[in-house]
Amino acid sequence: MTKIKTKRDRVKFASDNVAGACPEVLDAIIKANDGDSTPYGNDQISTKLQDKFSEIFEKEVIVFPTASGTAANALALATMTPSFGNVYCHKLSHINTDECGAPEFYTGGGKLVTLNGVKGKITAEELDQAISGKGIVHHTQPSSVSITQVCETGEVYQLDEIKKISEVTHKHNLSIHMDGARFANALVSLNATPAEMTWKSGIDVLSFGATKNGCIAAEAIIFFKKNLVGNVAFLMKRAGHLLSKMRFVSAQLDAYISNDVWLRNAKHANKMGKKLSDGLKDHADINLAYPTEANEVFATFPRNKIDYLNSEGYQINEDEWDGKAVRLVAAWNTQDTDVDHLLNSLKNSN
Amino acid sequence: MTKIKTKRDRVKFASDNVAGACPEVLDAIIKANDGDSTPYGNDQISTKLQDKFSEIFEKEVIVFPTASGTAANALALATMTPSFGNVYCHKLSHINTDECGAPEFYTGGGKLVTLNGVKGKITAEELDQAISGKGIVHHTQPSSVSITQVCETGEVYQLDEIKKISEVTHKHNLSIHMDGARFANALVSLNATPAEMTWKSGIDVLSFGATKNGCIAAEAIIFFKKNLVGNVAFLMKRAGHLLSKMRFVSAQLDAYISNDVWLRNAKHANKMGKKLSDGLKDHADINLAYPTEANEVFATFPRNKIDYLNSEGYQINEDEWDGKAVRLVAAWNTQDTDVDHLLNSLKNSN
Amino acid sequence: MTKIKTKRDRVKFASDNVAGACPEVLDAIIKANDGDSTPYGNDQISTKLQDKFSEIFEKEVIVFPTASGTAANALALATMTPSFGNVYCHKLSHINTDECGAPEFYTGGGKLVTLNGVKGKITAEELDQAISGKGIVHHTQPSSVSITQVCETGEVYQLDEIKKISEVTHKHNLSIHMDGARFANALVSLNATPAEMTWKSGIDVLSFGATKNGCIAAEAIIFFKKNLVGNVAFLMKRAGHLLSKMRFVSAQLDAYISNDVWLRNAKHANKMGKKLSDGLKDHADINLAYPTEANEVFATFPRNKIDYLNSEGYQINEDEWDGKAVRLVAAWNTQDTDVDHLLNSLKNSN
Amino acid sequence: MTKIKTKRDRVKFASDNVAGACPEVLDAIIKANDGDSTPYGNDQISTKLQDKFSEIFEKEVIVFPTASGTAANALALATMTPSFGNVYCHKLSHINTDECGAPEFYTGGGKLVTLNGVKGKITAEELDQAISGKGIVHHTQPSSVSITQVCETGEVYQLDEIKKISEVTHKHNLSIHMDGARFANALVSLNATPAEMTWKSGIDVLSFGATKNGCIAAEAIIFFKKNLVGNVAFLMKRAGHLLSKMRFVSAQLDAYISNDVWLRNAKHANKMGKKLSDGLKDHADINLAYPTEANEVFATFPRNKIDYLNSEGYQINEDEWDGKAVRLVAAWNTQDTDVDHLLNSLKNSN
Repeated sequence: MTKIKTKRDRVKFASDNVAGACPEVLDAIIKANDGDSTPYGNDQISTKLQDKFSEIFEKEVIVFPTASGTAANALALATMTPSFGNVYCHKLSHINTDECGAPEFYTGGGKLVTLNGVKGKITAEELDQAISGKGIVHHTQPSSVSITQVCETGEVYQLDEIKKISEVTHKHNLSIHMDGARFANALVSLNATPAEMTWKSGIDVLSFGATKNGCIAAEAIIFFKKNLVGNVAFLMKRAGHLLSKMRFVSAQLDAYISNDVWLRNAKHANKMGKKLSDGLKDHADINLAYPTEANEVFATFPRNKIDYLNSEGYQINEDEWDGKAVRLVAAWNTQDTDVDHLLNSLKNSN
Repeated sequence: MTKIKTKRDRVKFASDNVAGACPEVLDAIIKANDGDSTPYGNDQISTKLQDKFSEIFEKEVIVFPTASGTAANALALATMTPSFGNVYCHKLSHINTDECGAPEFYTGGGKLVTLNGVKGKITAEELDQAISGKGIVHHTQPSSVSITQVCETGEVYQLDEIKKISEVTHKHNLSIHMDGARFANALVSLNATPAEMTWKSGIDVLSFGATKNGCIAAEAIIFFKKNLVGNVAFLMKRAGHLLSKMRFVSAQLDAYISNDVWLRNAKHANKMGKKLSDGLKDHADINLAYPTEANEVFATFPRNKIDYLNSEGYQINEDEWDGKAVRLVAAWNTQDTDVDHLLNSLKNSN
Repeated sequence: MTKIKTKRDRVKFASDNVAGACPEVLDAIIKANDGDSTPYGNDQISTKLQDKFSEIFEKEVIVFPTASGTAANALALATMTPSFGNVYCHKLSHINTDECGAPEFYTGGGKLVTLNGVKGKITAEELDQAISGKGIVHHTQPSSVSITQVCETGEVYQLDEIKKISEVTHKHNLSIHMDGARFANALVSLNATPAEMTWKSGIDVLSFGATKNGCIAAEAIIFFKKNLVGNVAFLMKRAGHLLSKMRFVSAQLDAYISNDVWLRNAKHANKMGKKLSDGLKDHADINLAYPTEANEVFATFPRNKIDYLNSEGYQINEDEWDGKAVRLVAAWNTQDTDVDHLLNSLKNSN
Repeated sequence: MTKIKTKRDRVKFASDNVAGACPEVLDAIIKANDGDSTPYGNDQISTKLQDKFSEIFEKEVIVFPTASGTAANALALATMTPSFGNVYCHKLSHINTDECGAPEFYTGGGKLVTLNGVKGKITAEELDQAISGKGIVHHTQPSSVSITQVCETGEVYQLDEIKKISEVTHKHNLSIHMDGARFANALVSLNATPAEMTWKSGIDVLSFGATKNGCIAAEAIIFFKKNLVGNVAFLMKRAGHLLSKMRFVSAQLDAYISNDVWLRNAKHANKMGKKLSDGLKDHADINLAYPTEANEVFATFPRNKIDYLNSEGYQINEDEWDGKAVRLVAAWNTQDTDVDHLLNSLKNSN
């Protein structure tokens, strides 16, 4: 069989952000391009997002669309955390390890207090013990908690876990943020409603990710409590995240959350992740590092298998994640044949 | 004739950012969506931008694509200005009046020292006198200069004006930035080359605007001096402006600067601006506040004419700009009939 | 007569911060040194300051002692101004020209919007016109006003001037700060009570200066409104301005405001300033640049007279202040003979 | 025997910052008060400090006096760490736990990456493994290392430990800072020279503490490498730490480092700490938590003994430090009788 290695093949499974936009989202962009429109989010598409998200979350929410997940996280945290405040988060959390200090920048110098967690998830108990020093002027002040859903090891916080963490958070009068970069993947994994996985479990502010699961560049900061909105509009503008032609971000979000597009995409990605994960079990020398609960697969590979895959054109790196495991990510556009190809390559590598 | 007022009609002339993307740019987005691609600007479209811009500017330049003009400005200034530094700029400059303090945010608290200028442009003489206090620990330190091209009154800096300002800037060992939100409009107005209007006239760093002139959300920070690049990559990531699917920003820029799309768009917008400006001269009670040198028209209108236009569906506000003049902006997609419609409305208002 | 030029002679009149501490303040430091004491302002001297200042201001005030006037100003402004906020102030104000951007640092990037004023003082009218853009996301937000008493030209705001400025400030829902680096000098000049010159005239927060008028390093941030205190204690600690042996700062303030020490010192300094100012009138080629209303004298000198004084050992510089006038400052320890010496030198210079 | 509990008795051993200034330092302040002097550190006392410290450190050093140890630390780190930089430090380090985020404030949002260390000290090996991500735009950038000498458990870094940590630091092209809040106590504990404990062991920048060991408010930032000084003068002014009457800080430092005052004070404090530590060994239910290597004693006490001591007027709190041990600190002015009194009280508590 002739192998054709194109650049695009090689990048498959490296992340879910290697995929482009799904057809519905691309169509929405094209449609939004028809004619003129009021800038800076005062267009019709943007203004109706508020209602659409409120419907989805079964509660009146306040929505700020943004093109960047890092910005969504940092802006959200900046409304919950003063410059002298602590954000409690997992040591592996994206906000701590992969945003080049964005939360520190946006909060004006806040401190990320890292928790070891159990695997990829923090626990309510550990959080409870970590929060201290409130009101003492020498100490940075406990202010907020952030959890990632799907978390950085591919695991998904269960509803009762979220609830317990929220309870501890609120017991100490802190606010809690969910980094939902893979919100839809978690949601379909739990088979929960958006409301259940967020405000009904105590979440105060959500970074609603859409880019990875079928958009081009579209996220939303969603406030479940009005009093937490604070000055986020000014902070967003000040950071250059209030795009003039905001309708194009809003159009992506609109299409994404309409007609179950987001849920379909996520279900498919998770299914492909599961298929890949199951396939890896055939290899005695490959071990799952964490259970595959959504669309990300973490596994330890023998060196020769990694080398072989990369010689096949994949871009796989065991240093990618924590130096221990390889991360493989299925996306909305991953095909059965893509999974088969990778699994076949692995077989050939023996 | 039946008048149909749609939302989109109303917003015409309010700004050039009410227009969507031109066909070439939209096509490029659609094309870029085909297949997977390395994220964070390491894709093929993004990496080749460096060469394309270098060709256009007749010099090896260093390019950072971004989705936001405010971010481009603030990031550029942050590489040239320490937290205790002064940015000298016109009092009406966008960075001073319309970015909610983005330069202050990105520089970590820099100070914008505002110059009165002559109409919308600063002068080399005024700048020379304003720069002071260098090396004295009590004073914020002269660091950078920023000019806007097309400037905030619709006027265009002439090449010799830019040169003189650059010379003063460099005499004091400062760096100079050009906010080129309407770079193409200025360029075709001057009938100059990109090189002539920038580094050949002494400009060190450019915010290359594309959004207003036919893109969706695409700008580029262009460094003409390598030593000024500094840590901008980290600052950009830290601010959430390194989009994961950066290829879609790059694809816009690529299409925009290919095949003279940007110049054609700008020429057309300027032509429509000129037509509108000329048409206003028929009204004795309407006076141009500034010469129309690109695609923006500033004029004082009698109150009743403003009211009439707004009753027609336009969104015109004399408080929009400096409380004195109305700003009307032609865009790449402004039609002759659009100008005719507005001029006819004015006639009817008598 | 033999002239002996010592370094200390030369610096006389250069500023009032060239003087050391007055005897009462030095004694208080020595006394405070006796024995151990709770650190960080929880000592007995510090805690009773609250009451003493409340008595002096005829109102329950909240006091934060600090060793630095720049820090006092910046911390005060940081409680009144968000990172995206405007501080309205005179273009010559110390916070704008002589603190190397401290307000920008402490506010996290706030913007100082400078007013031209009439001579050294801003006017209520100019302020009223300058405040704009509230609630509009593109603009930095009007937040606070700061006036300097004694102002930077040596003039003193009259009570009705302060009241008018405060009224405009509060009309726009902003807060107003007084930089009272020479608070006592202004107070005795106006023959007003501390209450009259501050909260009774609408002032919300005061930087109460003591260093220049007889202390070593002692200022106080005084809040007349509890709701403005905000997080200043955390900001102060975070900036390294919560000294561990705070009792020594408090002891200075305690002695300073006891037994009319501060008022006596200021009266004397003002008297010496007046004597100097009057003496200058004998010289036709010396002109007061501003009326001498407290302890600072601003005058234009012919070049040869400046040169002669400096040859005599003075440190006088017409570039010191605004490039136009020489500033001569009398202090609590200025002697009649000091003034006579300078005036005699001037006569000899003819 | 009649016990007289005064407030000042009670605070003994709570910290070494409860003590006032030693006689030599107080005398220097009184002497510095004689006459006028150039402000802002341009006086004769301040300018000659440079030479005196250079002599003591056997190397030309650059010295910035400051009134605050927190400011000294944060300013030092700000010259070594960009806003997107990592500072590696012990999890218990003062900069991480007791400065309310000062390093984050001064660096503009830098990240403190905490190491677990072995007891109170970090190790070269742990540091070596922790430093990662250099040059990768997603990660905050390894920039500096900070160690505390005496460290937060009362232990003293040995010279070879400092050397190894410095070597790892420099291997990765980072800079290393020593928080020498108790520099003299460590020095006499090691019987080393100032040069040996700093630059000869690889230290780049030192916070030289003097307040705790006999001054009122005096520390010094000491640069052993000129290229690291950077813009610290501007940052210091901008933070309000360039005191106008700086001579009084400099006079303290001058007296402190003259005639072995600092070493005598530290030797005495360490001796008293040792005496106290030895005395605690008589109690089977009191256990040293860490070896007593300087003037701080950490020990676990049974609850009833703590209660008894506090009933005697002491201010002892097992929550003070890490929730596990009580910290007792001897100072330059601790008397044999003070130690005896505490030890006697302990005997009585049985």
